[in-house]
Amino acid sequence: MKERTLGILGGGQLAQMLALAAIPLNVRVVVLEPDAQAPARLCAEHLAAPYTDPVGLNELAACEAVTLEFENVPVEALDALHGRVPVRPGAELLARSKHRAREKQALREAEADTAPFIVIESAPELQGALKQVGGRGILKTSELGYDGKGQARVSSDFELGQAWEALGGVPCVLEGFVNFEREVSLAVARTPDGRVAFGPLVENVHRDGILRTSIYPANVPAGTEEKAREMARAVAEHWGLEGLMTLEFFQLPSGPAGEGRLLVNEVAPRVHNSGHLTQDGGGVSQFEAQVRAVLGLPLTDWQPLHPCAMVNYVGVDGAEPEWEGIDALEGTRVHLYHKAHRHGRKLGHVNLVAPDAETLRQRLEQLEKLIP
Amino acid sequence: MKERTLGILGGGQLAQMLALAAIPLNVRVVVLEPDAQAPARLCAEHLAAPYTDPVGLNELAACEAVTLEFENVPVEALDALHGRVPVRPGAELLARSKHRAREKQALREAEADTAPFIVIESAPELQGALKQVGGRGILKTSELGYDGKGQARVSSDFELGQAWEALGGVPCVLEGFVNFEREVSLAVARTPDGRVAFGPLVENVHRDGILRTSIYPANVPAGTEEKAREMARAVAEHWGLEGLMTLEFFQLPSGPAGEGRLLVNEVAPRVHNSGHLTQDGGGVSQFEAQVRAVLGLPLTDWQPLHPCAMVNYVGVDGAEPEWEGIDALEGTRVHLYHKAHRHGRKLGHVNLVAPDAETLRQRLEQLEKLIP
Repeated sequence: MKERTLGILGGGQLAQMLALAAIPLNVRVVVLEPDAQAPARLCAEHLAAPYTDPVGLNELAACEAVTLEFENVPVEALDALHGRVPVRPGAELLARSKHRAREKQALREAEADTAPFIVIESAPELQGALKQVGGRGILKTSELGYDGKGQARVSSDFELGQAWEALGGVPCVLEGFVNFEREVSLAVARTPDGRVAFGPLVENVHRDGILRTSIYPANVPAGTEEKAREMARAVAEHWGLEGLMTLEFFQLPSGPAGEGRLLVNEVAPRVHNSGHLTQDGGGVSQFEAQVRAVLGLPLTDWQPLHPCAMVNYVGVDGAEPEWEGIDALEGTRVHLYHKAHRHGRKLGHVNLVAPDAETLRQRLEQLEKLIP
Repeated sequence: MKERTLGILGGGQLAQMLALAAIPLNVRVVVLEPDAQAPARLCAEHLAAPYTDPVGLNELAACEAVTLEFENVPVEALDALHGRVPVRPGAELLARSKHRAREKQALREAEADTAPFIVIESAPELQGALKQVGGRGILKTSELGYDGKGQARVSSDFELGQAWEALGGVPCVLEGFVNFEREVSLAVARTPDGRVAFGPLVENVHRDGILRTSIYPANVPAGTEEKAREMARAVAEHWGLEGLMTLEFFQLPSGPAGEGRLLVNEVAPRVHNSGHLTQDGGGVSQFEAQVRAVLGLPLTDWQPLHPCAMVNYVGVDGAEPEWEGIDALEGTRVHLYHKAHRHGRKLGHVNLVAPDAETLRQRLEQLEKLIP
């Protein structure tokens, strides 16, 4: 089988893990990433230059296809690649998913359910906004927010005004507060010729706005996964996805009216932290799925063979995970990113597998104690 | 967790897969390998220089430890590293395992069973040798043989004389022919502080002297794995192993006298083609095990969670595996080495997993048809 080449915009841990998954498929990875110490340097040809560097972009243009590990790719970079190499997902989809207001509107157009929201671009639009979304909400900047940054909870008009000022008065989306039961996510991949495949439905627990733990299978009412797939397929097809996309959902409380009802919270046009557990659950990982989808290779659903979980290792000043205990705990697999320690920085994750859900629960309880 | 560095002598597919396993453990790999196109270049710092290059050896000496992917490392390289960085396995063990006669004698000293053998270093020693090993045998060069190269079957004194001449009259070992039931292998790892762990007992099928298929679990009489582990532990401890070693065994026919009896055929001081299936059987792979053992990290037995198998992809002129069919077959995982096609060259392998042994057998039957 001939060697293929895949370009990636960005060289962080997602690019690193994409490259680790690409190599066994005879795919050579080229990464454009300004940080000389970026994690992907270890397993990809690293072009250490700005995303808009013409020489670096020429190298990417010589690849069979280009994908990305973050959505905030400069428009200039996409423009420079346009017509020379397929970028997957494409520029239009990226423009949406890096802009919260456009994303929400495009989700509505794809008939995916979301929480009530209002776009706020100027001070007068604050007037009465909170009432319209139900009296309580979360104000989020339209652009550049991630991991809980660039957002604030508000429950009065006064708080809303203050929050908007604190966020710099930039364009925002005010989302109605959702009293959800749990957060789940699901990835969908679509090849350039329109084949669609799905990842597992995963349950997510956040801490301080950052993903802490993901669990498969998700503890959800019957039929939830089917609904998530339906919505993911609708969005993927409506948006013309080429590549892989991860949808985060709120699952609403069960009840006569709301059995397994899902609202799309966010969309990431790429592999996602909540899919890391697919690396060790058996079978294809989300990283292999993105590589396959982007290059148009054969692709099937990538469902883990076992119950599995993931706990993030986020830098905490003065505390370190108990590595010996983690290694000694049955079913753990350590994934470290070769990044310098910094408080609040994602430095790695630990995957966990078990033969059944109850054993997974017990092991996860142990694992959580070993990671501060 | 701090980043570690591991040096590897050799940059072929084994080094490539060692590096792929090392990266998630926060281990950066440096490879000394003269071939500019070597597979490990993709995921390791590649020093493209002869194994005896002083600059390259200085770089290896700056690592925390050095391991290898082939046993025929020049003595000069080992001498240059001696006292500067731990080489694991060490020079004495390597000297044995790259010299068939010394290996056999050292196995005897460790009380491991082997087929009868005679060392032949000069023409007079041919006299009566065949009779002593049972009348039929295999003549193998003491050094530099691999994948069935450098050996010949002989069943008469005349054939023995001819074979020895054909092999160049170099020092050889004449091994008595063993009427074995099947070939199996097992890897053992030992850390510098003496902790021992085992890989799975795997069944192997060869074709034209090259490994074709490996299957786990091996279809062997009860107690066979325990015997293999006992022998592997004895050899590892007697030889002072630091790192990982794979033992290939002949399993003799079952019967009142020979239930599960094993003879050690060969020893490789490293990960081995028969252990590739551990990459996808779930849990730790042989590659991670070697990295852990060499660096003294925590290590447990690396038993797959599922029945699994591997089929080698060896270059065949004018024929190519049916990749679409392979990808469409449930449970397959493709591993390609980024090597140019050449007849008889190992270019990749396909791993296969299944929920039970019978499903594995059925899928393997399909897979075998798809790989020429």
